[in-house]
Amino acid sequence: MKRFGQMIKIKSPEDLEKYKMHHANPMPGVNEMIKECNLQNYSIFSRGEYLFAYFEYVGDDFEADMAKMAADPNTQAWWDVVKPLMQPLDDRAEGDFWSDMESVYYLA
Amino acid sequence: MKRFGQMIKIKSPEDLEKYKMHHANPMPGVNEMIKECNLQNYSIFSRGEYLFAYFEYVGDDFEADMAKMAADPNTQAWWDVVKPLMQPLDDRAEGDFWSDMESVYYLA
Repeated sequence: MKRFGQMIKIKSPEDLEKYKMHHANPMPGVNEMIKECNLQNYSIFSRGEYLFAYFEYVGDDFEADMAKMAADPNTQAWWDVVKPLMQPLDDRAEGDFWSDMESVYYLA
Repeated sequence: MKRFGQMIKIKSPEDLEKYKMHHANPMPGVNEMIKECNLQNYSIFSRGEYLFAYFEYVGDDFEADMAKMAADPNTQAWWDVVKPLMQPLDDRAEGDFWSDMESVYYLA
């Protein structure tokens, strides 16, 4: 199992309110696809202009599962609504939306 | 069980290297006290000037457990080493070191 920490910015306080509203009641199929793609214990936290995501990947082919998620029409419809509220970090890697963080400590 | 997300800054890239070195091999008793104070699945991630912590509290008196941790000599010796590497957020709440974030999404 691999633990992920990821960062991104929210564009504005108004967009944060929209983001929270949408995530309080995700569109049909979105959560189901996340589970089907082997992500679990998924939390998103906010503070100021930052969002932080923590999740655990329990599958054996992360790239394939992420490609599966990206190809899902329900997920695409969801991303069309929530992605415009977010601002990727200026120093993100090529092609990234959320930016992966480095794990520096873990205690079970 | 309550999930926590917390943010803080690291003072410099050099301090981040020291922070990573110390957390790769915490001082004796530090991890044991964290477990004894009912924190589990504890990860710290870094990116740029930010540190993000995720942990799960499984006890029934968070304030009492945090007071117990703060009173532990091993934990105090550890904090004397690692706290000077960190910079609390400018807009932190009175008395805070790490700043709590708001949970905006959770999927088991």
